[in-house]
Amino acid sequence: MKILIATRNQHKLTEIREIFSDSGLELLTVDDFSGLPEVEEDADTFALNAIKKAVTLAMVAKMWTLADDSGLEVDALGGEPGIYSARYAGEPVDYEANNRKLLKEMEGVADRNARFRCVIALSTPEGFSQYVEGVCEGVIVNDERGEDGFGYDPLFMPDGYEDTFAEMDSGLKNSISHRANALRIAWEKWEKLLK
Amino acid sequence: MKILIATRNQHKLTEIREIFSDSGLELLTVDDFSGLPEVEEDADTFALNAIKKAVTLAMVAKMWTLADDSGLEVDALGGEPGIYSARYAGEPVDYEANNRKLLKEMEGVADRNARFRCVIALSTPEGFSQYVEGVCEGVIVNDERGEDGFGYDPLFMPDGYEDTFAEMDSGLKNSISHRANALRIAWEKWEKLLK
Repeated sequence: MKILIATRNQHKLTEIREIFSDSGLELLTVDDFSGLPEVEEDADTFALNAIKKAVTLAMVAKMWTLADDSGLEVDALGGEPGIYSARYAGEPVDYEANNRKLLKEMEGVADRNARFRCVIALSTPEGFSQYVEGVCEGVIVNDERGEDGFGYDPLFMPDGYEDTFAEMDSGLKNSISHRANALRIAWEKWEKLLK
Repeated sequence: MKILIATRNQHKLTEIREIFSDSGLELLTVDDFSGLPEVEEDADTFALNAIKKAVTLAMVAKMWTLADDSGLEVDALGGEPGIYSARYAGEPVDYEANNRKLLKEMEGVADRNARFRCVIALSTPEGFSQYVEGVCEGVIVNDERGEDGFGYDPLFMPDGYEDTFAEMDSGLKNSISHRANALRIAWEKWEKLLK
């Protein structure tokens, strides 16, 4: 079965392809279509942003569509940057500036607890959706560490490991990440529908 | 076609029945079923609460299900009571105490702008959902006025009228209310599906 993955983020696409490599699904991307709209992520929650993206593109492409919204929640910052993770230091998206801002906000802060959260929404071609959520708990380290991954990966060390996401090889990261957890739950929930 | 209305609130049921009286739908309520779960409204937004209620009950009842979540947003209070509208003065729900609390918070406040917001979610029997939103703009008056309606109705005067919701007859209120607006949009969107 064909399914549209509603992201233009190549990093996310690569992660999703790796995780879905044995699924038998044919993953299409927005680049396989012309004229798909840009969907503004202006909702108040990860879930409503993911639903909006999945539903909007599913109805235009007339195809089952999967969309994700994800971000970093830092306890000492009251859950920020949260839904503003990508644009934390302003627009356009600048991962380096985001990391610098986060390090500055966390200077001298003892409570380093944080989690990556990922919501995956699946929409029918008619625009009816479901969503699932995955998290990965960890801490914010004191300095950027590692070159792999993207976004806040150099600053996030998952519980139970001594490497940041950016220090791990992608296979390990993609087996324990928030996106992996969400996609695993999604697959358990939707496997029958999507096969 | 039969559709389950996922509310135990008799006031809401009455409003929904009035608005859907010409729809040809057979409206079932949670009292027509045994063993339906109570759904905790613990999400961060009206939309996610309505979706949660509709999806949970639709999958248990194996039936198309409509759920609403609604509340009052007061500009000068940063959007409060919002999703906490029913429990604004604590639990159990006490409309009188809520109104007293709101009047106290608004003492001496010049900006009286507020709106009722209603989200209606529709779920398929398989648990896929859509939602629509309706609002009714107005102001918070200085004292409770009127005996009809429920909740914050004695304190809310919709723009363009000189009566509060609780002073209007139900026919007028049910033609201009947030719930009426949401249900109208819902009906336009879902009429073909539900007939």
